[in-house]
Amino acid sequence: MAETQGKVITCKGNCCGMAKEPLVIQEICVDPPQKMEVRVKILYSSICHTDLRAWTGVNEGERAFPRILGHEAVRIVESVGGVKDVKEGDYVIPTFNGECGECRVCTNGVSNLCERYKVDPMKRLMVNDGGTRFSTTTNKDGGSSQKQRVYHFLNTSTFTEYTVLDSACVVKIDPNAPLKQMSLLSCGVSTGVGAAWNTANVKEGTTTAVFGLGSVGLAAAEGARARGASRIIGVDANASKFEKGTSYPKDLTKPVHERIRELMSGGVDYSFECTGNVDVLREAFLSTQAGWGSTVLVGIYPTPKTLPLHPMELFDGRTITGSIFGGFKPKSQLPNFAQQCMKGVVKLEPFITNELPFEKINDAFQLLRDGKSLRCVLQISKFLKK
Amino acid sequence: MAETQGKVITCKGNCCGMAKEPLVIQEICVDPPQKMEVRVKILYSSICHTDLRAWTGVNEGERAFPRILGHEAVRIVESVGGVKDVKEGDYVIPTFNGECGECRVCTNGVSNLCERYKVDPMKRLMVNDGGTRFSTTTNKDGGSSQKQRVYHFLNTSTFTEYTVLDSACVVKIDPNAPLKQMSLLSCGVSTGVGAAWNTANVKEGTTTAVFGLGSVGLAAAEGARARGASRIIGVDANASKFEKGTSYPKDLTKPVHERIRELMSGGVDYSFECTGNVDVLREAFLSTQAGWGSTVLVGIYPTPKTLPLHPMELFDGRTITGSIFGGFKPKSQLPNFAQQCMKGVVKLEPFITNELPFEKINDAFQLLRDGKSLRCVLQISKFLKK
Repeated sequence: MAETQGKVITCKGNCCGMAKEPLVIQEICVDPPQKMEVRVKILYSSICHTDLRAWTGVNEGERAFPRILGHEAVRIVESVGGVKDVKEGDYVIPTFNGECGECRVCTNGVSNLCERYKVDPMKRLMVNDGGTRFSTTTNKDGGSSQKQRVYHFLNTSTFTEYTVLDSACVVKIDPNAPLKQMSLLSCGVSTGVGAAWNTANVKEGTTTAVFGLGSVGLAAAEGARARGASRIIGVDANASKFEKGTSYPKDLTKPVHERIRELMSGGVDYSFECTGNVDVLREAFLSTQAGWGSTVLVGIYPTPKTLPLHPMELFDGRTITGSIFGGFKPKSQLPNFAQQCMKGVVKLEPFITNELPFEKINDAFQLLRDGKSLRCVLQISKFLKK
Repeated sequence: MAETQGKVITCKGNCCGMAKEPLVIQEICVDPPQKMEVRVKILYSSICHTDLRAWTGVNEGERAFPRILGHEAVRIVESVGGVKDVKEGDYVIPTFNGECGECRVCTNGVSNLCERYKVDPMKRLMVNDGGTRFSTTTNKDGGSSQKQRVYHFLNTSTFTEYTVLDSACVVKIDPNAPLKQMSLLSCGVSTGVGAAWNTANVKEGTTTAVFGLGSVGLAAAEGARARGASRIIGVDANASKFEKGTSYPKDLTKPVHERIRELMSGGVDYSFECTGNVDVLREAFLSTQAGWGSTVLVGIYPTPKTLPLHPMELFDGRTITGSIFGGFKPKSQLPNFAQQCMKGVVKLEPFITNELPFEKINDAFQLLRDGKSLRCVLQISKFLKK
């Protein structure tokens, strides 16, 4: 049993005090886990655009400061509160989209949107008691100190040495897995690969177009490749993304979907929209084959724009579907996905373009903002692997 | 071999000369079928809202006069042009959505939107030669006569004793079938039942909401019933449609989808939108269960309104799909569907609310406009059944 069990742990963490303020590493107090919660020590955490968006506070309803951001990580369990499926010392990854295993959705089999723990960008408090497990202490004039609560983020909060999360959001992984790479399964890679595997269900010999070549888009392409897609077209406004493929010059005289239809005998079988731009969404939709084309939305779309599609355009046999966390049921399906990654079915290594110590978190954010990294992995805690 | 084979047939037909003008029965000249065409004698034809819409000329691009409307019928083959799968004397029904059996879509298996003969409201000419097979003759002053060509409608044109259509749009049926009822399989009933069977794939024990209780909506409900749906909710602005079910009073204090979610523990499994109104479409979409709800669009939506849905609303696990001709591949699947109707799996009789002679076609249109009929069957030709 960990010496720290049942006690408040004081550790290094990054608390985002205000939108867009530089991120500072400071002392964070982490309470023990309550019933059906797990306290973990974070080893590595990677950074995703969703962290960047939360940091900028662009969506009013999602703002909640002070807050600990971060939702991709790999960790070791420190202690649990009455949880059976993981125990102290287990290697785990967090998932922002949880799985209680008991609600109508979890038992229904079709969807991964658990009624209790599905992704909720507004959520900032623990389900158990509506409280937080994080706090900071401020020294006031006169020597007294004041405790301030710190909000959670996306069921996870990984930019800290220790965090507490619902057991529904914890997935056990093989201790022999390459740990840094496993961090990517918490969000970006699972979201993209799963969009191709689970939501679109890409078949061998088919064709695919991916709009937006960040980590999620490239993961969708990697998922399609792993499924045996015969041709994959990448579309991005940033020409530097094209160095690995055959590059077609920009043709401003016609919309992208017309160009793709010309290249692909009427269109692709599947398209993945990973930019969050509704105009790109329309191009992605129209790029697929009439009769059976399938468009999967993976981007996050700002309110209040509605779909730029006419209802009759849904009668041409093209479908459009949103995909959350790639349709993966985290606790039921991620362990097997992790095994497939370990076997090389999906290659994770190319997604890690940068590695930095925890203290350089602002540099990591800047790399992502500048489009210079796919995933930067931060080393949060030093540890000796068993 | 019919005496008329290879000759022009002069018969009674209804040629719509101008939008909204009263319909007149007159002499129509019907040319012989060309290659891969079939000339048929119409026995019965029923009337659908699509005929009404074409008659009013509401959509500019679809206007084409003079024209022979009508697309639901049952007929006997008079002669064929090199066609193998039907011959003189066969009983057939027409389908506005054809099946060539050879194009990429027909051979792909997923969709019923044949590349060559799928429904096209703009289409007015035969595929073979871009001509028409109908004409009228006008006597001019001085005794000479002038021939005027008459346009086709929806691959079918059934308000005439004889018509010519592409063999891709002809489906052979059992000569022992109840013929009047078979006319309904040309459009309305197949569209509704197929939306439930093929597009939504309604499962036993599930719940359904149908928006718009005309023939197509009631056919969707009948399709869901035949599949073993445990509960079916009908929604319509016309309270007289409710006499057969439990009626819930109008509750103007909240949107329909909220009421349905309350009644059905979070929503229905499937909803069918059969009104063509985008506001109703939104209600239908939001009435289904988050996680797995499926909305099928069957209505025809006027341009230029786009979908009143936010892209993020596609991430709640609800899907929305358009359904043409109920997803039935006409030549491959309708004969079996007709057999199932003959066995009583789907009950066709209640859909025929009125029967009139061909001459009363204006009365038949008026019944439909007034919401007083589901299907009115016109007897087009007198005949003796073999």
